[in-house]
Amino acid sequence: MTASLVAVVTDVVREGKRVVGFGFNSNGRYAQAGLLAERFIPRIMGASPASLLNDEGTNLDPHRIWARMMENEKPGGHGERSVAVGVIDMAVWDAVAKIEGMPLYRLLADRYNDGHADEKVFVYAAGGYYYPGKNVKALQDEMRKYMDLGYAVVKLKIGGESLADDLKRIDAVIDVVGSSDKIAVDANGRFDVATAVEYAKALEPLGLFWYEEAGDPLDFQLQAELANHYTQPMATGENLFSMQDARNLIRYGGMRPDRDWLQFDCALSYGLVEYMRTLQMLKEHGWSSRRCIPHGGHQMSLNIAAGLGLGGNESYPDVFQPFGGFADDTPVDASYVRMPDVAGVGFEAKSALYRVMKALAS
Amino acid sequence: MTASLVAVVTDVVREGKRVVGFGFNSNGRYAQAGLLAERFIPRIMGASPASLLNDEGTNLDPHRIWARMMENEKPGGHGERSVAVGVIDMAVWDAVAKIEGMPLYRLLADRYNDGHADEKVFVYAAGGYYYPGKNVKALQDEMRKYMDLGYAVVKLKIGGESLADDLKRIDAVIDVVGSSDKIAVDANGRFDVATAVEYAKALEPLGLFWYEEAGDPLDFQLQAELANHYTQPMATGENLFSMQDARNLIRYGGMRPDRDWLQFDCALSYGLVEYMRTLQMLKEHGWSSRRCIPHGGHQMSLNIAAGLGLGGNESYPDVFQPFGGFADDTPVDASYVRMPDVAGVGFEAKSALYRVMKALAS
Repeated sequence: MTASLVAVVTDVVREGKRVVGFGFNSNGRYAQAGLLAERFIPRIMGASPASLLNDEGTNLDPHRIWARMMENEKPGGHGERSVAVGVIDMAVWDAVAKIEGMPLYRLLADRYNDGHADEKVFVYAAGGYYYPGKNVKALQDEMRKYMDLGYAVVKLKIGGESLADDLKRIDAVIDVVGSSDKIAVDANGRFDVATAVEYAKALEPLGLFWYEEAGDPLDFQLQAELANHYTQPMATGENLFSMQDARNLIRYGGMRPDRDWLQFDCALSYGLVEYMRTLQMLKEHGWSSRRCIPHGGHQMSLNIAAGLGLGGNESYPDVFQPFGGFADDTPVDASYVRMPDVAGVGFEAKSALYRVMKALAS
Repeated sequence: MTASLVAVVTDVVREGKRVVGFGFNSNGRYAQAGLLAERFIPRIMGASPASLLNDEGTNLDPHRIWARMMENEKPGGHGERSVAVGVIDMAVWDAVAKIEGMPLYRLLADRYNDGHADEKVFVYAAGGYYYPGKNVKALQDEMRKYMDLGYAVVKLKIGGESLADDLKRIDAVIDVVGSSDKIAVDANGRFDVATAVEYAKALEPLGLFWYEEAGDPLDFQLQAELANHYTQPMATGENLFSMQDARNLIRYGGMRPDRDWLQFDCALSYGLVEYMRTLQMLKEHGWSSRRCIPHGGHQMSLNIAAGLGLGGNESYPDVFQPFGGFADDTPVDASYVRMPDVAGVGFEAKSALYRVMKALAS
């Protein structure tokens, strides 16, 4: 996989430097360069500058820029273009917060959450991938490393070989992390309904942290059937890329607002402007924003979690570097990470990532 | 909008010429060059050639090529990449039929439809767009032209201004085409549920050919609610880009297999390999393939219609040239078009299109 990185270069100067906002695409979908260069960036560049600003003309308006990007786009079919728009949206919000001279999560809390911000955010360590030759011992070593890094909840993949094999892998991870309620499992959408239910019955007594994406993300009937066989928390949503798709999960997927988790990733899904529509839709359906723990492990969702009161954020301690992960000086403590005091999304506090960004524009 | 055009250049020679298959993207989504160049084409080019052929090694296998293209792609989020894959899939099927030395629709009928092919396909003329300054007279002139070209059913847009205005426009078109049952209307997904129902009540007594895409294509609840207020035919599906999305429409959208129409467009939706999965899903849900009249107005869907027994195909006599439309020597007669006797999809029988294709490869 490659990654797309965009810079919004403004003519605003703060602390003696030109304000530049950055955005990148979350993992899973890539090569949006054509969509960016031929559809979305030209629309923004072709707009009258005043039409992209707030009423006072003092800052960019992310909602107006979003509307401009999506002008004449057809409805439905949400994928890839949702990533291209998400990349730009991230850069716009980074610029907006930098122009205001404050961390993005604070700006979001002030504008949209009655000023309430969380100073630290729950994070869990996502890993446990299948690699050729990776045995149970290697899986345990990986999980031990996450615990040593300060994570209390870890996630591993299931469905690679057999249920029996996965139960052994889960047992091995229990030996490392202490109890099964600290373990989430992720099937990456690979099960049919019979297999999903077979796993549900076997996993039910373990009381896992969650059972994620059992079947195809758009097979809401499968997800609803799963709920008939699994009373423990379920999680899904990372492959639903719009408010409309998220709404269908809520309408038809049998997800339970008192225990289940929603993993929509703004960077894959038209950015924060659309994510706020999703949060509004959730509220109208009786869901708390605390039930959202986004996929992706990036700083954008971390800011949204802290500023808009989500339940937490994914973290990939081992992979997707330098785009994944959080600020350098913010160790994870008891599975919580503190927010850095940096204007914008916080990229400047993550040196390996900022090096790449600075090479694009500064 | 731009268009992506791909060529599959083979080492097979037929009638003294190297076989080249062509594919292009249907209208509505564009700029998939990055996805093609960085994700899908490299996967095919990186495969061992034998793995892409049929068991006998005598021709390309579209299903195997499709599986290779989608290797390691994540589930869900169907849009844009579905167009990129659809473009390549079209070119592969064109090459396959050319290697067999037969029209694609004949090959499809032989392989998948017990040899039954339709020699002519129902087509309707889609137009009636809103343009600045376009008055009712201009709309009538446009529709008269379609009737003169041999179409018996025409389509116009609704929802641009007001219900009263649209009723006037429909009345004006009735004056040209003779009766309201020859007129389809298309809201392009712009109505909320109240407006969709308001239109339904006003349109119901007219007995139109169909009432298309009233609301957001993913708002299945709106579509199902509409069915409670509209007994006449509804149509939708052009913005659903996978079997899974189509299945959700069938599961939740209240569409009625005895009267409604499905408009999935293979060129936007991972191509014919995926479209066959959609047809299989429809069969399992009690739908006839005759209820499908694809969006797009291109020769690929025309072949599928003739070879797999669909209900017809869209046609844009006026727009999206040279990609839209059918073979040069096949006039429309009483809203039916005959299939040309040309190997492959039939691009070589459409000279304006083939000129563009030949410039890419020959």
